[in-house]
Amino acid sequence: MNDTLGIALIGCGTVGGGVARVLLAHADRVTQRAGRPLELRRVVVRDPSKSRDPLIPLDIISTDIHAAINDPGVHVVVELIGGTGLAKRVVLDALAAGKHVVTANKALLADAGAEVFEAARRADRTVCFEAAVAGGVPVIRALGESLAANQVTAIQAILNGTSNFILTAMAEGGKSYADALAEAQKLGYAEADPTLDVDGSDAAHKLAILAQIAFGVAAKPHEIARQGIDTIEAIDIRFANELGYTIKLLAEAWTGGHSHSGNGAKLSRSGAVPAEPTVALHVAPVLLRHTDLLAQVRGAYNAVLVYGDVVGETLYQGPGAGQMPTASSVVADLIDLGVGRAQRTFAAAKLWSREDRGFTVEPPERVRSRFYLRLQVVDRPGVLADVTRILADEEISISSLVQHEAEEEGGGPVPLVVVTHYASTGRFRKALDRITRLPTTAAAPVFFSMGD
Amino acid sequence: MNDTLGIALIGCGTVGGGVARVLLAHADRVTQRAGRPLELRRVVVRDPSKSRDPLIPLDIISTDIHAAINDPGVHVVVELIGGTGLAKRVVLDALAAGKHVVTANKALLADAGAEVFEAARRADRTVCFEAAVAGGVPVIRALGESLAANQVTAIQAILNGTSNFILTAMAEGGKSYADALAEAQKLGYAEADPTLDVDGSDAAHKLAILAQIAFGVAAKPHEIARQGIDTIEAIDIRFANELGYTIKLLAEAWTGGHSHSGNGAKLSRSGAVPAEPTVALHVAPVLLRHTDLLAQVRGAYNAVLVYGDVVGETLYQGPGAGQMPTASSVVADLIDLGVGRAQRTFAAAKLWSREDRGFTVEPPERVRSRFYLRLQVVDRPGVLADVTRILADEEISISSLVQHEAEEEGGGPVPLVVVTHYASTGRFRKALDRITRLPTTAAAPVFFSMGD
Ligand SMILES: NC(=O)c1ccc[n+]([C@@H]2O[C@H](COP(=O)([O-])OP(=O)(O)OC[C@H]3O[C@@H](n4cnc5c(N)ncnc54)[C@H](OP(=O)(O)O)[C@@H]3O)[C@@H](O)[C@H]2O)c1
Ligand SMILES: NC(=O)c1ccc[n+]([C@@H]2O[C@H](COP(=O)([O-])OP(=O)(O)OC[C@H]3O[C@@H](n4cnc5c(N)ncnc54)[C@H](OP(=O)(O)O)[C@@H]3O)[C@@H](O)[C@H]2O)c1
Repeated sequence: MNDTLGIALIGCGTVGGGVARVLLAHADRVTQRAGRPLELRRVVVRDPSKSRDPLIPLDIISTDIHAAINDPGVHVVVELIGGTGLAKRVVLDALAAGKHVVTANKALLADAGAEVFEAARRADRTVCFEAAVAGGVPVIRALGESLAANQVTAIQAILNGTSNFILTAMAEGGKSYADALAEAQKLGYAEADPTLDVDGSDAAHKLAILAQIAFGVAAKPHEIARQGIDTIEAIDIRFANELGYTIKLLAEAWTGGHSHSGNGAKLSRSGAVPAEPTVALHVAPVLLRHTDLLAQVRGAYNAVLVYGDVVGETLYQGPGAGQMPTASSVVADLIDLGVGRAQRTFAAAKLWSREDRGFTVEPPERVRSRFYLRLQVVDRPGVLADVTRILADEEISISSLVQHEAEEEGGGPVPLVVVTHYASTGRFRKALDRITRLPTTAAAPVFFSMGD
Repeated sequence: MNDTLGIALIGCGTVGGGVARVLLAHADRVTQRAGRPLELRRVVVRDPSKSRDPLIPLDIISTDIHAAINDPGVHVVVELIGGTGLAKRVVLDALAAGKHVVTANKALLADAGAEVFEAARRADRTVCFEAAVAGGVPVIRALGESLAANQVTAIQAILNGTSNFILTAMAEGGKSYADALAEAQKLGYAEADPTLDVDGSDAAHKLAILAQIAFGVAAKPHEIARQGIDTIEAIDIRFANELGYTIKLLAEAWTGGHSHSGNGAKLSRSGAVPAEPTVALHVAPVLLRHTDLLAQVRGAYNAVLVYGDVVGETLYQGPGAGQMPTASSVVADLIDLGVGRAQRTFAAAKLWSREDRGFTVEPPERVRSRFYLRLQVVDRPGVLADVTRILADEEISISSLVQHEAEEEGGGPVPLVVVTHYASTGRFRKALDRITRLPTTAAAPVFFSMGD
């Protein structure tokens, strides 16, 4: 039996509380799996008077981050405060003090991954972060270890459970966006301020981390084209359904030829590593065929579809957030540190290092995709001619078109849905600008990417 | 840069050929991921005159297993011959010669796991076997590493791509079992002799391995109740569909209370480790609701749904066989050995050791399930009374019943489908015996488990 691994939890809220519970309620199991005891020795919180899990000994709870980090009996600091301010200080100080770090903080890694990992390498310590992407779904290990024989050629993922819950409620319950959001808030799937979830920021943070592992690119948030779900209306869900599609908020990365193809199989099945080493990244509502695996992911679940040039496609699915699922991943990291695996992985992976793997991030405007475009147009002759003329000017051809009879007489605005063939995002946006300025366009156009 | 890891491939057929290709065509990638070169130094085959991948240097190909294993430049022996005879000798000799072993051989591990792992521990060497279960899907790492914080409470898995391909062709193409099998053979998804695939043996081997990792039980093949897909007729697919179900060949393990519940969530969501540490194991056609995740797995894919007491349910899906998917997993194991991770995992996991984790295998007859039962009965008064009387005698209550009007007049045999509530397999079999002997029963009854 090896020496005890001493642990300090900095932050003991939703996730921290779950981690404490697993370590304390299942100490025997964790010891057996890690090959040594993992002992919770310090718990640091903001408000020590809050009531906590009764299993946590009161005398290890404090507000003193510095003392916890510098306790010689602490070997691993688990950062579960969140945010990029204090959390970053905690992580850097812990590494400087010679402690390993486990974190679930995607914002911190997306923002300061290079700095954190450089500090870890300088200190010869390890940073683990399985819980930072897709909660309880072990996608970090999948990409970094299980698929190590592969060059990943594409990733398609549902990484934000809140958005997926809302879209599921809209699609299956016929709810409006506002009603679905309210339901998500009532059930605890969405925060009071849901901005980071529904505008795609949270998913973009997670995608940045996956892109670092899979392609070695350190994508900054502004390099990831991002569109949220807040512009999706019930009518879009219905039109999509009519066309045979389901709308999902996807975080996608794909290589080769710059064509956005939700059907990444096209990219990977060739077994070839793309000739042009660029990777396109975006977070956006995407229309997926009903039969696509990701179209069938319901509620608050996360799912990650990875295309590897050797294995083909593999899917990882499960709870993307929540107290115990996230704690499961944090404790797996602690066990890996206990076993000594995490240290090997960290040294071998060289994440956020200067080691160049040759991939660069494709500028968003060059990314090619098919598009779903919904216009609100005045119902009179010539409107369709104007719209199709503008698309033709940008060399964008039309794949399908849906316009229903107006509900009321008299030329009021009616929805017109255009699905295009492949076009660069730049040219599509140009066309969009011109269409928006048409006198016959009655409201801001709504558009999404097509998954194939 | 560490020292080169020398590799001997014993067997270079479907999987071995794929492994050679990845090691040779992607040497730079593999070196970078492993942190050291992985060099293919020996390839042993039965027939050296067969043409092989042109990347394999001719002078490393031989038929001399002994020389390959004892080559001091070889550090890892990859056994890809298959079977439990010669393959076992190769593995034990390699370990005795101080070499690590990587294998894709589920039959060998299910049969002689204890002996192989004991030999490895004695020799202080490591055995890796990600490819042995679900091909390219990294379920061994998921269970052994990613979910280490959990006690697994249930596993539900599609582990045989051939059977799933056949069932998909029957369900979607309306094919008979014989036609679907012929199609699978034509497309290379089924061997000329498909017995081990369609009778559930192959899936049972894989389930035995998963049950060892998840529950520490060394289930012998005869302890795994096993039923194949060869008794499924087109009419059962139609009846199942009418009732809202899809039939899948599942390998299942579940703990607690002995109730077979395909909806393992019921078992795991409580977050509690089952009080009674028994685990039920079976391979059988199971009726799953159309909306179940596993009901949606099509074609030759594999999928493994794992219920953990901390994380809840996570799903792993992808290609369960085939040259490159399987090679992806074998090379991942080689990279893990290069990194030094595999050695840590092996030492910590203590698989097939005498370390008792308290679980015992539930005797098949005590396993509880709901059942789908299709009878071929003579269409005359009293038949239903006889059948229901027998079920009542065994305290088996009926959940639903379907009998359609006879197609021809005159009391010829008609199908009668009974879906029961939970019953022990033992009592159900007793009832079945009596029903079979009824003079009104015109053919052997057909029955499957219900997934919920
Ligand atoms: N919640 C999820 O499902 C989930 C899933 C995946 C990843 N994550 C990530 O996990 C991290 C933690 O999330 P969470 O949901 O657990 O957050 P949370 O419930 O808000 O908990 C935050 C914890 O940090 C403590 N804290 C805040 N400021 C502090 C300070 N100045 N000094 C000391 N302690 C301080 C709080 O103390 P008090 O208890 O005294 O307030 C609380 O214990 C975040 O990075 C988040 O992105 C969360
Ligand atoms: N195929 C799959 O998709 C798959 C998936 C998962 C796991 N597996 C497992 O992987 C293993 C290998 O399967 P496979 O499909 O690759 O088999 P395979 O194509 O039949 O290849 C077997 C190899 O072993 C060699 N071999 C046979 N007897 C030998 C002997 N006496 N001495 C030296 N070499 C001998 C053969 O040599 P020759 O080339 O000269 O005939 C051939 O190269 C099996 O355990 C199987 O269960 C296979």
